[in-house]
Amino acid sequence: MSVETTATIASFGGKLLKLKHKASTTNCDMAFNLFLPPQATTSSSSKVPVLFYLSGLTCTGDNCAEKGFFQHGASQKGIAVVYPDTSPRGLQIQGEDDSYDFGSGAGFYVDATRDPWSKGYKMYSYVTEELPKTLFGAFPQLDSSRMSITGHSMGGHGALTLFLKNPGKYKSCSAFAPIANPINCPWGQKAFKGYFGDDQQQKWKEHDAAELVKQWKGPLDLLIDVGTGDNFYKQGQLLPENFVKAAKEAGVDKDVKLRMQPDYDHSYYFMATFADDHIAHAAKHLLS
Amino acid sequence: MSVETTATIASFGGKLLKLKHKASTTNCDMAFNLFLPPQATTSSSSKVPVLFYLSGLTCTGDNCAEKGFFQHGASQKGIAVVYPDTSPRGLQIQGEDDSYDFGSGAGFYVDATRDPWSKGYKMYSYVTEELPKTLFGAFPQLDSSRMSITGHSMGGHGALTLFLKNPGKYKSCSAFAPIANPINCPWGQKAFKGYFGDDQQQKWKEHDAAELVKQWKGPLDLLIDVGTGDNFYKQGQLLPENFVKAAKEAGVDKDVKLRMQPDYDHSYYFMATFADDHIAHAAKHLLS
Repeated sequence: MSVETTATIASFGGKLLKLKHKASTTNCDMAFNLFLPPQATTSSSSKVPVLFYLSGLTCTGDNCAEKGFFQHGASQKGIAVVYPDTSPRGLQIQGEDDSYDFGSGAGFYVDATRDPWSKGYKMYSYVTEELPKTLFGAFPQLDSSRMSITGHSMGGHGALTLFLKNPGKYKSCSAFAPIANPINCPWGQKAFKGYFGDDQQQKWKEHDAAELVKQWKGPLDLLIDVGTGDNFYKQGQLLPENFVKAAKEAGVDKDVKLRMQPDYDHSYYFMATFADDHIAHAAKHLLS
Repeated sequence: MSVETTATIASFGGKLLKLKHKASTTNCDMAFNLFLPPQATTSSSSKVPVLFYLSGLTCTGDNCAEKGFFQHGASQKGIAVVYPDTSPRGLQIQGEDDSYDFGSGAGFYVDATRDPWSKGYKMYSYVTEELPKTLFGAFPQLDSSRMSITGHSMGGHGALTLFLKNPGKYKSCSAFAPIANPINCPWGQKAFKGYFGDDQQQKWKEHDAAELVKQWKGPLDLLIDVGTGDNFYKQGQLLPENFVKAAKEAGVDKDVKLRMQPDYDHSYYFMATFADDHIAHAAKHLLS
Protein backbone atom coordinates (compact mmCIF):
# COMPACT_ATOMS: atom_id res chain seq x y z
CA MET A 1 0.00 0.00 0.00
CA SER A 2 2.98 2.31 0.22
CA VAL A 3 3.41 4.83 -2.55
CA GLU A 4 6.81 5.98 -3.73
CA THR A 5 7.21 9.51 -5.07
CA THR A 6 9.67 9.44 -7.97
CA ALA A 7 9.38 13.13 -8.91
CA THR A 8 7.67 16.31 -7.76
CA ILE A 9 7.09 18.94 -10.44
CA ALA A 10 5.67 22.43 -9.96
CA SER A 11 2.72 22.99 -12.31
CA PHE A 12 0.05 25.70 -12.42
CA GLY A 13 0.56 26.70 -8.80
CA GLY A 14 0.27 23.09 -7.58
CA LYS A 15 2.40 19.97 -7.72
CA LEU A 16 2.46 17.11 -10.18
CA LEU A 17 3.66 14.01 -8.36
CA LYS A 18 5.04 11.02 -10.23
CA LEU A 19 4.16 8.00 -8.13
CA LYS A 20 4.70 4.25 -8.10
CA HIS A 21 3.23 1.45 -6.04
CA LYS A 22 3.09 -2.32 -5.98
CA ALA A 23 -0.40 -3.33 -7.12
CA SER A 24 -1.85 -6.71 -6.29
CA THR A 25 -4.71 -6.56 -8.80
CA THR A 26 -2.34 -6.11 -11.73
CA ASN A 27 0.46 -8.15 -10.25
CA CYS A 28 3.15 -5.56 -10.91
CA ASP A 29 4.43 -2.10 -10.04
CA MET A 30 2.08 0.57 -11.34
CA ALA A 31 3.11 4.15 -12.08
CA PHE A 32 0.63 6.99 -12.00
CA ASN A 33 0.60 10.77 -11.78
CA LEU A 34 -1.25 12.92 -9.29
CA PHE A 35 -1.80 16.63 -9.70
CA LEU A 36 -2.35 18.35 -6.37
CA PRO A 37 -3.87 21.79 -6.88
CA PRO A 38 -2.59 24.67 -4.72
CA GLN A 39 -5.57 24.18 -2.43
CA ALA A 40 -4.20 20.72 -1.49
CA THR A 41 -0.60 21.73 -0.95
CA THR A 42 -1.22 24.40 1.65
CA SER A 43 -1.97 23.68 5.28
CA SER A 44 -5.69 24.12 4.64
CA SER A 45 -7.76 21.63 6.57
CA SER A 46 -10.44 21.18 3.90
CA LYS A 47 -10.00 18.25 1.54
CA VAL A 48 -10.06 18.54 -2.24
CA PRO A 49 -12.10 16.34 -4.60
CA VAL A 50 -10.48 14.06 -7.17
CA LEU A 51 -10.93 13.67 -10.93
CA PHE A 52 -9.71 10.40 -12.45
CA TYR A 53 -8.50 10.79 -16.01
CA LEU A 54 -8.25 7.52 -17.97
CA SER A 55 -5.89 7.49 -20.95
CA GLY A 56 -6.26 5.96 -24.37
CA LEU A 57 -4.47 3.22 -26.30
CA THR A 58 -0.64 3.32 -26.25
CA CYS A 59 -0.56 6.02 -23.55
CA THR A 60 0.66 6.07 -19.99
CA GLY A 61 -0.42 8.53 -17.33
CA ASP A 62 2.30 10.87 -18.59
CA ASN A 63 0.88 11.95 -21.94
CA CYS A 64 -2.11 13.84 -20.66
CA ALA A 65 -0.24 15.24 -17.67
CA GLU A 66 2.15 16.83 -20.19
CA LYS A 67 -0.17 17.77 -23.02
CA GLY A 68 -3.79 17.73 -21.83
CA PHE A 69 -3.87 21.00 -19.82
CA PHE A 70 -6.18 19.63 -17.19
CA GLN A 71 -3.92 21.20 -14.59
CA HIS A 72 -4.93 24.66 -15.82
CA GLY A 73 -8.58 24.32 -14.86
CA ALA A 74 -7.99 21.93 -11.95
CA SER A 75 -5.72 24.48 -10.32
CA GLN A 76 -8.35 27.19 -10.60
CA LYS A 77 -11.16 24.99 -9.26
CA GLY A 78 -9.18 23.18 -6.57
CA ILE A 79 -9.54 19.66 -7.96
CA ALA A 80 -6.87 16.95 -7.80
CA VAL A 81 -6.34 14.94 -11.00
CA VAL A 82 -5.18 11.30 -11.08
CA TYR A 83 -3.64 9.90 -14.27
CA PRO A 84 -3.36 6.08 -14.04
CA ASP A 85 -1.50 3.88 -16.49
CA THR A 86 -3.46 1.98 -19.16
CA SER A 87 -2.39 -1.60 -18.39
CA PRO A 88 -0.06 -3.71 -16.28
CA ARG A 89 3.54 -3.58 -17.46
CA GLY A 90 6.17 -6.25 -17.81
CA LEU A 91 4.10 -9.30 -16.87
CA GLN A 92 6.00 -11.25 -19.54
CA ILE A 93 2.86 -12.68 -21.05
CA GLN A 94 3.55 -13.93 -24.55
CA GLY A 95 2.31 -11.45 -27.15
CA GLU A 96 1.86 -8.70 -24.55
CA ASP A 97 3.77 -6.14 -26.61
CA ASP A 98 2.80 -7.31 -30.10
CA SER A 99 -0.13 -4.94 -30.78
CA TYR A 100 -0.77 -1.30 -30.00
CA ASP A 101 -4.43 -2.12 -29.33
CA PHE A 102 -4.16 -5.21 -27.13
CA GLY A 103 -2.01 -6.10 -24.12
CA SER A 104 0.45 -3.45 -22.90
CA GLY A 105 -1.05 0.01 -23.08
CA ALA A 106 -4.44 -1.44 -23.91
CA GLY A 107 -6.00 -2.83 -20.74
CA PHE A 108 -9.45 -1.51 -21.70
CA TYR A 109 -10.45 -1.03 -18.05
CA VAL A 110 -11.79 -4.57 -17.71
CA ASP A 111 -10.85 -7.56 -15.54
CA ALA A 112 -9.69 -10.20 -18.01
CA THR A 113 -11.16 -13.64 -17.37
CA ARG A 114 -9.26 -15.47 -20.06
CA ASP A 115 -5.82 -16.99 -19.57
CA PRO A 116 -3.09 -15.79 -19.69
CA TRP A 117 -4.46 -12.23 -19.44
CA SER A 118 -6.35 -12.91 -16.24
CA LYS A 119 -2.94 -13.09 -14.57
CA GLY A 120 -2.83 -9.31 -14.19
CA TYR A 121 -4.98 -7.50 -16.77
CA LYS A 122 -7.41 -6.34 -14.09
CA MET A 123 -7.60 -2.65 -14.84
CA TYR A 124 -11.26 -2.46 -13.80
CA SER A 125 -10.49 -3.54 -10.24
CA TYR A 126 -7.28 -1.56 -10.23
CA VAL A 127 -8.92 1.74 -11.17
CA THR A 128 -12.16 1.35 -9.22
CA GLU A 129 -10.75 -0.26 -6.06
CA GLU A 130 -7.04 -0.64 -5.50
CA LEU A 131 -5.87 2.70 -6.84
CA PRO A 132 -8.40 4.80 -4.88
CA LYS A 133 -7.66 2.85 -1.70
CA THR A 134 -3.92 3.40 -2.18
CA LEU A 135 -4.41 7.04 -3.07
CA PHE A 136 -6.69 8.03 -0.22
CA GLY A 137 -4.49 6.10 2.20
CA ALA A 138 -1.41 8.01 1.12
CA PHE A 139 -2.90 11.47 0.61
CA PRO A 140 -5.22 12.50 3.44
CA GLN A 141 -5.80 15.88 1.77
CA LEU A 142 -7.89 14.11 -0.91
CA ASP A 143 -11.61 13.66 -0.31
CA SER A 144 -12.60 10.03 -0.96
CA SER A 145 -16.28 10.97 -0.92
CA ARG A 146 -15.92 13.23 -3.98
CA MET A 147 -14.58 11.46 -7.08
CA SER A 148 -15.36 12.14 -10.73
CA ILE A 149 -14.13 10.41 -13.86
CA THR A 150 -13.20 11.35 -17.41
CA GLY A 151 -11.06 9.89 -20.16
CA HIS A 152 -9.99 9.80 -23.77
CA SER A 153 -10.73 7.18 -26.46
CA MET A 154 -10.21 3.79 -24.72
CA GLY A 155 -10.16 5.88 -21.53
CA GLY A 156 -13.45 7.51 -22.54
CA HIS A 157 -14.87 4.00 -22.76
CA GLY A 158 -13.36 3.39 -19.32
CA ALA A 159 -14.86 6.56 -17.86
CA LEU A 160 -18.35 5.85 -19.22
CA THR A 161 -18.43 2.19 -18.23
CA LEU A 162 -16.92 2.63 -14.76
CA PHE A 163 -19.41 5.43 -14.11
CA LEU A 164 -22.41 3.50 -15.42
CA LYS A 165 -21.46 0.27 -13.62
CA ASN A 166 -21.08 2.00 -10.26
CA PRO A 167 -23.98 4.37 -9.64
CA GLY A 168 -23.08 6.88 -6.96
CA LYS A 169 -19.36 6.07 -6.93
CA TYR A 170 -18.44 9.00 -9.16
CA LYS A 171 -20.12 12.39 -8.87
CA SER A 172 -19.85 12.99 -12.61
CA CYS A 173 -18.48 11.63 -15.87
CA SER A 174 -17.32 13.10 -19.16
CA ALA A 175 -15.41 11.75 -22.13
CA PHE A 176 -13.27 12.80 -25.09
CA ALA A 177 -13.74 10.76 -28.26
CA PRO A 178 -14.82 7.67 -26.30
CA ILE A 179 -15.06 4.17 -27.71
CA ALA A 180 -18.75 4.34 -26.87
CA ASN A 181 -19.98 1.01 -28.21
CA PRO A 182 -16.99 -1.36 -28.13
CA ILE A 183 -18.92 -4.55 -28.89
CA ASN A 184 -19.63 -3.08 -32.32
CA CYS A 185 -16.20 -1.73 -33.28
CA PRO A 186 -12.93 -3.46 -34.25
CA TRP A 187 -10.91 -2.18 -31.26
CA GLY A 188 -13.49 -3.31 -28.74
CA GLN A 189 -14.13 -6.65 -30.41
CA LYS A 190 -10.43 -7.48 -30.48
CA ALA A 191 -9.99 -6.52 -26.83
CA PHE A 192 -13.08 -8.29 -25.49
CA LYS A 193 -12.35 -11.40 -27.51
CA GLY A 194 -8.86 -11.46 -26.05
CA TYR A 195 -9.69 -10.62 -22.47
CA PHE A 196 -13.05 -12.48 -22.16
CA GLY A 197 -13.28 -14.91 -25.09
CA ASP A 198 -15.47 -15.04 -28.13
CA ASP A 199 -18.31 -16.83 -26.39
CA GLN A 200 -18.78 -14.41 -23.51
CA GLN A 201 -21.31 -12.06 -25.05
CA GLN A 202 -22.89 -11.22 -21.69
CA LYS A 203 -19.48 -10.23 -20.33
CA TRP A 204 -18.88 -8.06 -23.40
CA LYS A 205 -22.16 -6.21 -22.80
CA GLU A 206 -21.25 -5.57 -19.17
CA HIS A 207 -18.41 -3.38 -20.42
CA ASP A 208 -20.18 -1.60 -23.25
CA ALA A 209 -21.41 1.92 -22.50
CA ALA A 210 -24.21 1.75 -25.08
CA GLU A 211 -25.49 -1.40 -23.39
CA LEU A 212 -24.99 -0.24 -19.81
CA VAL A 213 -26.87 3.01 -20.36
CA LYS A 214 -30.04 1.03 -21.04
CA GLN A 215 -30.17 0.12 -17.37
CA TRP A 216 -29.43 3.59 -16.03
CA LYS A 217 -32.00 5.12 -13.69
CA GLY A 218 -32.25 8.79 -12.77
CA PRO A 219 -30.48 11.84 -14.12
CA LEU A 220 -27.49 11.38 -16.44
CA ASP A 221 -25.47 14.55 -16.93
CA LEU A 222 -22.71 13.62 -19.37
CA LEU A 223 -20.38 15.77 -21.48
CA ILE A 224 -18.92 14.03 -24.51
CA ASP A 225 -16.72 15.79 -27.08
CA VAL A 226 -15.83 14.23 -30.42
CA GLY A 227 -13.97 15.92 -33.29
CA THR A 228 -15.45 15.72 -36.76
CA GLY A 229 -11.91 15.41 -38.13
CA ASP A 230 -11.16 12.38 -35.93
CA ASN A 231 -10.06 9.53 -38.20
CA PHE A 232 -11.03 6.90 -35.63
CA TYR A 233 -14.49 8.41 -35.47
CA LYS A 234 -14.71 8.26 -39.26
CA GLN A 235 -13.54 4.63 -39.20
CA GLY A 236 -16.36 3.67 -36.85
CA GLN A 237 -14.23 2.94 -33.79
CA LEU A 238 -16.03 5.41 -31.53
CA LEU A 239 -19.74 5.24 -32.44
CA PRO A 240 -20.91 7.97 -30.03
CA GLU A 241 -24.25 8.19 -31.85
CA ASN A 242 -25.00 4.61 -30.82
CA PHE A 243 -24.54 5.59 -27.22
CA VAL A 244 -26.78 8.64 -27.51
CA LYS A 245 -29.43 6.57 -29.32
CA ALA A 246 -29.40 3.99 -26.54
CA ALA A 247 -29.66 6.72 -23.90
CA LYS A 248 -32.59 8.18 -25.81
CA GLU A 249 -34.36 4.83 -26.01
CA ALA A 250 -33.85 4.43 -22.27
CA GLY A 251 -35.27 7.91 -21.69
CA VAL A 252 -32.14 9.19 -19.95
CA ASP A 253 -30.68 11.37 -22.70
CA LYS A 254 -31.97 14.74 -21.53
CA ASP A 255 -28.60 15.85 -20.12
CA VAL A 256 -26.36 13.77 -22.36
CA LYS A 257 -24.45 16.39 -24.30
CA LEU A 258 -22.62 15.04 -27.35
CA ARG A 259 -20.73 17.92 -28.92
CA MET A 260 -19.33 17.31 -32.39
CA GLN A 261 -16.38 19.71 -32.56
CA PRO A 262 -15.70 20.89 -36.12
CA ASP A 263 -12.35 19.77 -37.59
CA TYR A 264 -10.83 18.51 -34.33
CA ASP A 265 -8.85 15.28 -34.50
CA HIS A 266 -8.13 12.53 -31.95
CA SER A 267 -5.02 14.17 -30.48
CA TYR A 268 -4.08 15.95 -27.30
CA TYR A 269 -4.48 19.24 -29.21
CA PHE A 270 -8.19 18.43 -29.20
CA MET A 271 -8.24 17.58 -25.51
CA ALA A 272 -6.20 20.58 -24.46
CA THR A 273 -8.72 22.81 -26.22
CA PHE A 274 -11.69 21.47 -24.28
CA ALA A 275 -10.00 20.42 -21.01
CA ASP A 276 -11.31 23.50 -19.19
CA ASP A 277 -14.88 22.57 -20.17
CA HIS A 278 -14.49 19.06 -18.77
CA ILE A 279 -12.98 20.37 -15.56
CA ALA A 280 -15.94 22.77 -15.28
CA HIS A 281 -18.33 19.85 -15.84
CA ALA A 282 -16.67 17.88 -13.03
CA ALA A 283 -16.51 20.95 -10.79
CA LYS A 284 -20.26 21.48 -11.15
CA HIS A 285 -20.77 18.11 -9.47
CA LEU A 286 -17.74 17.94 -7.19
CA LEU A 287 -18.00 21.40 -5.69
CA SER A 288 -21.75 21.79 -5.42
CA MET B 1 9.91 30.85 -51.07
CA SER B 2 7.02 28.43 -51.30
CA VAL B 3 5.75 26.88 -48.11
CA GLU B 4 4.37 23.37 -47.98
CA THR B 5 1.66 22.56 -45.44
CA THR B 6 2.24 19.04 -44.12
CA ALA B 7 -0.58 19.05 -41.56
CA THR B 8 -3.44 21.23 -40.34
CA ILE B 9 -4.56 20.62 -36.77
CA ALA B 10 -7.50 22.26 -34.99
CA SER B 11 -6.35 23.81 -31.70
CA PHE B 12 -8.04 26.26 -29.32
CA GLY B 13 -10.46 27.51 -31.94
CA GLY B 14 -7.71 28.18 -34.48
CA LYS B 15 -5.40 26.08 -36.63
CA LEU B 16 -1.92 24.77 -36.01
CA LEU B 17 -0.17 24.41 -39.35
CA LYS B 18 2.87 22.19 -39.78
CA LEU B 19 4.95 23.80 -42.49
CA LYS B 20 8.11 23.18 -44.43
CA HIS B 21 10.17 25.30 -46.80
CA LYS B 22 13.50 25.28 -48.55
CA ALA B 23 15.71 27.79 -46.73
CA SER B 24 18.74 29.33 -48.38
CA THR B 25 20.29 30.72 -45.19
CA THR B 26 20.45 27.29 -43.56
CA ASN B 27 21.01 25.41 -46.78
CA CYS B 28 18.30 22.81 -46.10
CA ASP B 29 14.58 22.23 -45.72
CA MET B 30 13.30 23.84 -42.55
CA ALA B 31 10.15 22.75 -40.70
CA PHE B 32 8.21 25.12 -38.50
CA ASN B 33 4.78 25.42 -36.92
CA LEU B 34 2.36 28.29 -37.20
CA PHE B 35 -0.64 28.76 -34.95
CA LEU B 36 -3.32 30.85 -36.60
CA PRO B 37 -5.80 32.11 -34.02
CA PRO B 38 -9.51 32.07 -34.90
CA GLN B 39 -9.24 35.75 -35.80
CA ALA B 40 -6.88 34.82 -38.68
CA THR B 41 -8.88 31.91 -40.06
CA THR B 42 -12.10 33.78 -40.65
CA SER B 43 -12.68 36.06 -43.59
CA SER B 44 -11.91 39.10 -41.43
CA SER B 45 -9.94 41.72 -43.31
CA SER B 46 -7.86 42.84 -40.33
CA LYS B 47 -4.45 41.25 -39.97
CA VAL B 48 -3.21 39.58 -36.80
CA PRO B 49 0.16 40.22 -35.12
CA VAL B 50 2.79 37.50 -34.75
CA LEU B 51 4.72 36.17 -31.77
CA PHE B 52 7.91 34.24 -32.54
CA TYR B 53 8.65 31.54 -29.99
CA LEU B 54 12.26 30.28 -30.01
CA SER B 55 12.87 26.82 -28.57
CA GLY B 56 15.66 25.52 -26.41
CA LEU B 57 18.39 22.92 -26.84
CA THR B 58 17.33 19.56 -28.33
CA CYS B 59 13.87 20.83 -29.26
CA THR B 60 12.14 21.40 -32.56
CA GLY B 61 9.18 23.67 -33.13
CA ASP B 62 6.95 20.78 -32.10
CA ASN B 63 7.64 20.54 -28.38
CA CYS B 64 6.21 23.87 -27.36
CA ALA B 65 3.32 23.64 -29.83
CA GLU B 66 2.32 20.43 -28.02
CA LYS B 67 3.19 21.24 -24.43
CA GLY B 68 3.63 25.00 -24.00
CA PHE B 69 -0.01 26.11 -23.85
CA PHE B 70 0.71 29.29 -25.84
CA GLN B 71 -2.25 28.56 -28.10
CA HIS B 72 -4.60 29.06 -25.14
CA GLY B 73 -3.78 32.73 -24.64
CA ALA B 74 -2.93 33.44 -28.28
CA SER B 75 -6.39 32.28 -29.30
CA GLN B 76 -8.04 34.61 -26.80
CA LYS B 77 -5.93 37.61 -27.79
CA GLY B 78 -5.85 37.01 -31.54
CA ILE B 79 -2.11 36.53 -31.91
CA ALA B 80 -0.42 34.13 -34.33
CA VAL B 81 2.49 32.11 -32.92
CA VAL B 82 5.46 30.88 -34.97
CA TYR B 83 7.56 28.00 -33.67
CA PRO B 84 10.79 27.69 -35.72
CA ASP B 85 13.25 24.81 -35.50
CA THR B 86 16.46 25.25 -33.49
CA SER B 87 19.07 24.48 -36.16
CA PRO B 88 19.55 23.30 -39.73
CA ARG B 89 18.99 19.55 -40.13
CA GLY B 90 20.86 16.94 -42.09
CA LEU B 91 23.71 19.08 -43.44
CA GLN B 92 26.02 16.10 -42.94
CA ILE B 93 28.66 18.12 -41.17
CA GLN B 94 30.97 15.85 -39.21
CA GLY B 95 30.08 15.87 -35.51
CA GLU B 96 26.73 17.57 -36.16
CA ASP B 97 24.81 15.05 -34.07
CA ASP B 98 27.46 14.27 -31.45
CA SER B 99 26.32 16.66 -28.70
CA TYR B 100 22.94 17.74 -27.40
CA ASP B 101 24.31 21.25 -26.87
CA PHE B 102 26.12 21.89 -30.16
CA GLY B 103 25.21 21.32 -33.80
CA SER B 104 21.79 19.82 -34.54
CA GLY B 105 19.14 21.20 -32.19
CA ALA B 106 21.59 23.79 -30.88
CA GLY B 107 21.96 26.57 -33.45
CA PHE B 108 22.03 29.24 -30.74
CA TYR B 109 20.42 31.81 -33.05
CA VAL B 110 23.76 33.00 -34.41
CA ASP B 111 25.33 33.03 -37.87
CA ALA B 112 28.35 30.75 -37.58
CA THR B 113 31.50 32.19 -39.10
CA ARG B 114 33.74 29.19 -38.53
CA ASP B 115 34.03 26.30 -40.96
CA PRO B 116 32.33 23.88 -41.37
CA TRP B 117 29.41 25.37 -39.40
CA SER B 118 29.25 28.48 -41.53
CA LYS B 119 27.89 26.20 -44.27
CA GLY B 120 24.38 26.44 -42.87
CA TYR B 121 24.31 27.25 -39.16
CA LYS B 122 22.84 30.70 -39.81
CA MET B 123 19.89 30.68 -37.46
CA TYR B 124 20.23 34.41 -36.77
CA SER B 125 19.61 35.32 -40.41
CA TYR B 126 17.05 32.56 -40.74
CA VAL B 127 14.88 33.73 -37.84
CA THR B 128 15.28 37.47 -38.32
CA GLU B 129 15.11 37.62 -42.13
CA GLU B 130 14.33 34.55 -44.18
CA LEU B 131 11.60 33.05 -42.03
CA PRO B 132 9.59 36.29 -41.65
CA LYS B 133 9.92 37.00 -45.37
CA THR B 134 8.69 33.51 -46.20
CA LEU B 135 5.93 33.68 -43.63
CA PHE B 136 4.49 37.04 -44.56
CA GLY B 137 4.70 36.14 -48.23
CA ALA B 138 2.67 32.99 -47.69
CA PHE B 139 0.18 34.23 -45.10
CA PRO B 140 -1.27 37.64 -45.96
CA GLN B 141 -3.47 37.53 -42.86
CA LEU B 142 -0.33 38.08 -40.73
CA ASP B 143 0.75 41.64 -39.96
CA SER B 144 4.45 42.06 -40.75
CA SER B 145 4.51 45.37 -38.91
CA ARG B 146 3.62 43.75 -35.58
CA MET B 147 6.06 41.07 -34.44
CA SER B 148 7.09 40.12 -30.91
CA ILE B 149 9.53 37.52 -29.68
CA THR B 150 9.87 35.11 -26.78
CA GLY B 151 11.70 31.87 -26.10
CA HIS B 152 12.94 29.27 -23.66
CA SER B 153 16.48 28.58 -22.44
CA MET B 154 18.69 28.77 -25.59
CA GLY B 155 15.56 30.27 -27.19
CA GLY B 156 15.33 32.79 -24.35
CA HIS B 157 18.88 33.81 -25.25
CA GLY B 158 17.70 34.01 -28.87
CA ALA B 159 14.70 36.16 -27.98
CA LEU B 160 16.72 38.60 -25.86
CA THR B 161 19.60 38.96 -28.30
CA LEU B 162 17.47 39.24 -31.46
CA PHE B 163 15.35 41.86 -29.71
CA LEU B 164 18.32 43.84 -28.39
CA LYS B 165 20.25 43.69 -31.68
CA ASN B 166 17.29 44.96 -33.72
CA PRO B 167 15.66 47.93 -31.99
CA GLY B 168 12.18 48.46 -33.35
CA LYS B 169 11.96 45.14 -35.18
CA TYR B 170 10.02 43.43 -32.39
CA LYS B 171 7.31 45.20 -30.41
CA SER B 172 8.17 43.27 -27.26
CA CYS B 173 10.30 40.51 -25.80
CA SER B 174 10.02 38.04 -22.98
CA ALA B 175 11.89 34.91 -21.96
CA PHE B 176 11.60 31.70 -19.96
CA ALA B 177 14.76 30.58 -18.18
CA PRO B 178 17.01 32.30 -20.75
CA ILE B 179 20.72 31.72 -21.15
CA ALA B 180 21.16 35.37 -20.30
CA ASN B 181 24.93 35.70 -20.29
CA PRO B 182 26.26 32.98 -22.60
CA ILE B 183 29.86 34.20 -22.71
CA ASN B 184 30.08 33.33 -19.01
CA CYS B 185 28.42 29.92 -18.97
CA PRO B 186 29.52 26.48 -20.27
CA TRP B 187 26.71 26.13 -22.86
CA GLY B 188 27.37 29.54 -24.37
CA GLN B 189 31.14 29.19 -24.32
CA LYS B 190 30.99 25.82 -26.09
CA ALA B 191 28.60 27.14 -28.74
CA PHE B 192 30.40 30.41 -29.41
CA LYS B 193 33.78 28.71 -29.52
CA GLY B 194 32.41 26.26 -32.07
CA TYR B 195 30.47 28.69 -34.21
CA PHE B 196 32.82 31.73 -34.00
CA GLY B 197 36.16 30.48 -32.71
CA ASP B 198 38.03 31.01 -29.49
CA ASP B 199 39.65 34.25 -30.59
CA GLN B 200 36.49 36.10 -31.59
CA GLN B 201 35.63 37.74 -28.28
CA GLN B 202 33.97 40.72 -29.97
CA LYS B 203 31.68 38.38 -31.91
CA TRP B 204 30.81 36.53 -28.72
CA LYS B 205 29.76 39.78 -27.07
CA GLU B 206 27.54 40.68 -30.03
CA HIS B 207 25.40 37.68 -29.13
CA ASP B 208 25.35 38.04 -25.37
CA ALA B 209 22.24 39.62 -23.86
CA ALA B 210 24.09 40.91 -20.79
CA GLU B 211 26.55 42.68 -23.09
CA LEU B 212 23.99 43.95 -25.60
CA VAL B 213 21.79 45.50 -22.93
CA LYS B 214 24.60 47.92 -22.06
CA GLN B 215 24.00 49.69 -25.38
CA TRP B 216 20.19 49.80 -25.15
CA LYS B 217 18.56 53.22 -25.30
CA GLY B 218 15.02 54.03 -24.25
CA PRO B 219 12.41 51.96 -22.44
CA LEU B 220 13.00 48.23 -21.97
CA ASP B 221 9.87 46.35 -20.90
CA LEU B 222 10.97 42.73 -20.46
CA LEU B 223 9.30 39.81 -18.69
CA ILE B 224 11.69 37.04 -17.64
CA ASP B 225 10.58 33.98 -15.64
CA VAL B 226 13.05 31.59 -14.06
CA GLY B 227 12.21 28.70 -11.72
CA THR B 228 14.10 28.41 -8.46
CA GLY B 229 14.07 24.62 -8.89
CA ASP B 230 15.69 24.83 -12.33
CA ASN B 231 18.85 22.70 -12.26
CA PHE B 232 20.40 24.61 -15.13
CA TYR B 233 19.86 27.84 -13.21
CA LYS B 234 21.54 26.28 -10.19
CA GLN B 235 24.44 25.11 -12.37
CA GLY B 236 25.07 28.66 -13.58
CA GLN B 237 23.99 28.13 -17.19
CA LEU B 238 21.36 30.89 -17.15
CA LEU B 239 22.79 33.75 -15.04
CA PRO B 240 19.71 36.00 -15.25
CA GLU B 241 21.06 38.15 -12.41
CA ASN B 242 24.02 39.12 -14.60
CA PHE B 243 21.61 40.41 -17.20
CA VAL B 244 19.58 42.39 -14.68
CA LYS B 245 22.77 43.82 -13.16
CA ALA B 246 23.97 44.96 -16.58
CA ALA B 247 20.58 46.52 -17.31
CA LYS B 248 20.75 48.31 -13.99
CA GLU B 249 24.23 49.64 -14.69
CA ALA B 250 23.00 50.87 -18.05
CA GLY B 251 20.05 52.57 -16.35
CA VAL B 252 17.45 50.64 -18.36
CA ASP B 253 16.25 48.17 -15.72
CA LYS B 254 13.12 50.02 -14.62
CA ASP B 255 10.75 47.72 -16.54
CA VAL B 256 12.93 44.60 -16.59
CA LYS B 257 10.87 42.13 -14.56
CA LEU B 258 12.82 39.05 -13.48
CA ARG B 259 10.39 36.78 -11.64
CA MET B 260 11.96 33.92 -9.69
CA GLN B 261 9.18 31.32 -9.60
CA PRO B 262 9.36 29.13 -6.48
CA ASP B 263 10.10 25.44 -7.15
CA TYR B 264 9.55 25.53 -10.92
CA ASP B 265 11.99 23.57 -13.04
CA HIS B 266 13.26 23.98 -16.61
CA SER B 267 10.46 21.96 -18.24
CA TYR B 268 7.40 22.66 -20.33
CA TYR B 269 5.33 22.29 -17.14
CA PHE B 270 6.97 25.54 -16.08
CA MET B 271 6.29 27.24 -19.39
CA ALA B 272 2.70 26.05 -19.65
CA THR B 273 2.05 27.57 -16.22
CA PHE B 274 3.21 31.04 -17.23
CA ALA B 275 2.46 31.01 -20.97
CA ASP B 276 -0.67 33.12 -20.50
CA ASP B 277 1.41 35.81 -18.75
CA HIS B 278 3.88 35.95 -21.63
CA ILE B 279 1.09 36.14 -24.18
CA ALA B 280 -0.41 38.99 -22.15
CA HIS B 281 2.97 40.73 -22.12
CA ALA B 282 3.21 40.47 -25.90
CA ALA B 283 -0.44 41.48 -26.34
CA LYS B 284 0.15 44.68 -24.36
CA HIS B 285 2.62 45.75 -27.05
CA LEU B 286 1.14 44.09 -30.13
CA LEU B 287 -2.45 45.17 -29.63
CA SER B 288 -1.96 48.66 -28.20
